[in-house]
Amino acid sequence: MTTNEKALKLHEEWNGKLTTEPKCTIASREDLALAYTPGVAEPCKVIAEDKEAAYKYTIKSNTIAVVSDGSAVLGLGNIGPYAAMPVMEGKAVLFKSFGDVNAFPICLDTQDTEEIIKTVVNIAPAFGGINLEDISAPRCFEIETRLKELLDIPVFHDDQHGTAIVVLAGIINGLKITGKSKENCKVVINGAGSAGIAITKLLLTYGFKNVIMCDINGIINEDSPNLNWMQKSMLDVTNLDRLSGTLKDALVGADIFVGVSAPNIVSAEMVASMNKDSIIFAMANPVPEIMPDVAKAAGARIVGTGRSDFPNQVNNVIAFPGIFKGALEGRASQITEDMKLAAALAIANLVPDDKLCDEFILPEAFDPDVKDAVAKAVMDNIKPDGRNIHA
Amino acid sequence: MTTNEKALKLHEEWNGKLTTEPKCTIASREDLALAYTPGVAEPCKVIAEDKEAAYKYTIKSNTIAVVSDGSAVLGLGNIGPYAAMPVMEGKAVLFKSFGDVNAFPICLDTQDTEEIIKTVVNIAPAFGGINLEDISAPRCFEIETRLKELLDIPVFHDDQHGTAIVVLAGIINGLKITGKSKENCKVVINGAGSAGIAITKLLLTYGFKNVIMCDINGIINEDSPNLNWMQKSMLDVTNLDRLSGTLKDALVGADIFVGVSAPNIVSAEMVASMNKDSIIFAMANPVPEIMPDVAKAAGARIVGTGRSDFPNQVNNVIAFPGIFKGALEGRASQITEDMKLAAALAIANLVPDDKLCDEFILPEAFDPDVKDAVAKAVMDNIKPDGRNIHA
Repeated sequence: MTTNEKALKLHEEWNGKLTTEPKCTIASREDLALAYTPGVAEPCKVIAEDKEAAYKYTIKSNTIAVVSDGSAVLGLGNIGPYAAMPVMEGKAVLFKSFGDVNAFPICLDTQDTEEIIKTVVNIAPAFGGINLEDISAPRCFEIETRLKELLDIPVFHDDQHGTAIVVLAGIINGLKITGKSKENCKVVINGAGSAGIAITKLLLTYGFKNVIMCDINGIINEDSPNLNWMQKSMLDVTNLDRLSGTLKDALVGADIFVGVSAPNIVSAEMVASMNKDSIIFAMANPVPEIMPDVAKAAGARIVGTGRSDFPNQVNNVIAFPGIFKGALEGRASQITEDMKLAAALAIANLVPDDKLCDEFILPEAFDPDVKDAVAKAVMDNIKPDGRNIHA
Repeated sequence: MTTNEKALKLHEEWNGKLTTEPKCTIASREDLALAYTPGVAEPCKVIAEDKEAAYKYTIKSNTIAVVSDGSAVLGLGNIGPYAAMPVMEGKAVLFKSFGDVNAFPICLDTQDTEEIIKTVVNIAPAFGGINLEDISAPRCFEIETRLKELLDIPVFHDDQHGTAIVVLAGIINGLKITGKSKENCKVVINGAGSAGIAITKLLLTYGFKNVIMCDINGIINEDSPNLNWMQKSMLDVTNLDRLSGTLKDALVGADIFVGVSAPNIVSAEMVASMNKDSIIFAMANPVPEIMPDVAKAAGARIVGTGRSDFPNQVNNVIAFPGIFKGALEGRASQITEDMKLAAALAIANLVPDDKLCDEFILPEAFDPDVKDAVAKAVMDNIKPDGRNIHA
């Protein structure tokens, strides 16, 4: 039986990958009186006086929603909210398994931006955080930005920021190995969807100066066709030399390539045209932009992919469970840029100097230290400024 | 420590009464590949072709939402969605503990009827049913009716129908004991909110002919002030003799009194004015409309209350877990009147003839046979007519 066949069979056996479980046993009339009426009225009354007490008495303290409209699910595209459910349940399972954060899948029967925003705002009271998932660009940018403004709980679009954090962590370690400096590197990002844009932004925030974005039409510049508003806004901070041409042209003399795009679109020749000790993240899944052995043979020093069967797997699960664990434990009201940078540094530092090498730049997904290190990085960057922390 | 003090302390210890738990262990890369990418794409693809497969592969098969806007919580009134959370979590706990149905609390940060309807429709894909809870009348009637039209999953307002089902079950057994007939009984319902109206409707559906509703202004008739649209519509089927006067007037010659109203508003004298072998459900909580010993001394034959420390407790937990268990297992698309009547009969029949007596007309909440008997009654009444069952 193939993995896919086995997965389908298991999903039928599971019949839903998640259950809700009481923390309290209801075996007697007294149990009922304490967990339900009349006793339950006591925490209700306290919360009615002080909304913040919800964190003391309810699941809001450690529960997030995994919210999707099913518009951009994995590599499957716009399959809608019902078909998105197995992924969102899976994500909820990962939040619990890797971060000890309770999570519930909310799959929305609308793809209208305003309705999504309104619906998430309306259901927010039960949740301590909102993880947006698999919502297509550019709607995902507006939805996340608006929800951050409207809600006082952390809102995090993992396809953007989870990916960006792990890529940055890998690049930080790549710089250590190669001795390259962020200020002098030429970075090429291929793919200008939610992940590509978030990676670009985080690299710039970290201090990279020269980042060029490409899409299916080549280097993105002011003449590129069909740019959405977010892609247009990226022109202010990327490709400052106003290059034009193909991805191949972009890669000449580049130090770092990050692909969140399509299989086999980078050739050995293109890698050979990059600078010495080049760093390549070829994250198209399951077939990367270039296979690691081909890239290495063509001169790349460090190669990461999205796959678990090659070294240097770029896996969001390194980031998102610890991000929300830290945000919830620290009662952050937002996931800030500082937190993302700190999380990336913490992930990078989980690879000990004596083990750091071309084939080991990122911690393993199952490294038990990951979630606490990431959570601590988040908590250490909570600022009591009224937007960063409650109360 | 009082029960209330203990309840508050326990709620702090629980810090939320519910967790989400994975059904699948994620301990290896292979586990990840089966429960998440790439394997998870397989059930996604099947559901994308056939929405009904969501019942085969996702939590929709056995998960409901407990939805409230916090507008009419217990006896606490309009305390809002945050303060409502302990109750909704408690309800979710009861669904799991008593019916083996997974349930998640959705507390809405809006009390606008249209927004509530839209929000519930938008989040419906993850759920196999919607339990509405503690939404004030008359909005609850419109919200339930509209959601039943818009959704193809069961929608059930427990404050209405759960209460009505258990009251009818008790009355069915009361009739057996007293030998009264439903066609000839005079029934007085005091309280014209969601529960009072639903009880009245279900008694009429069962076959009672003479039901009189009262509210704080006395007998409801065409001259009653401040009636909402639902109360007005009840005039077509209640108080057909067009009586007027006070609750005291209504009770003269009555056989059955059902109170969902206020403490101590029924006197011994009023009970004495009722017919012989009267049946009284005094369900104001924690202090009933009349205390059982007082009612008995005044001539009542059977007395039920909402309290667990008196005989004949009218407790919704006898009904709602089995209702949704049956609806989900049978894949009903609605909870119909037939199902409610069948559930009431099933509950009544759980009290064996040889044990049936004035002090034992309803099964215990902890009777392990209750949920399956109620679920079977629901399932036996699913009709393949396109509105009653999927596919």
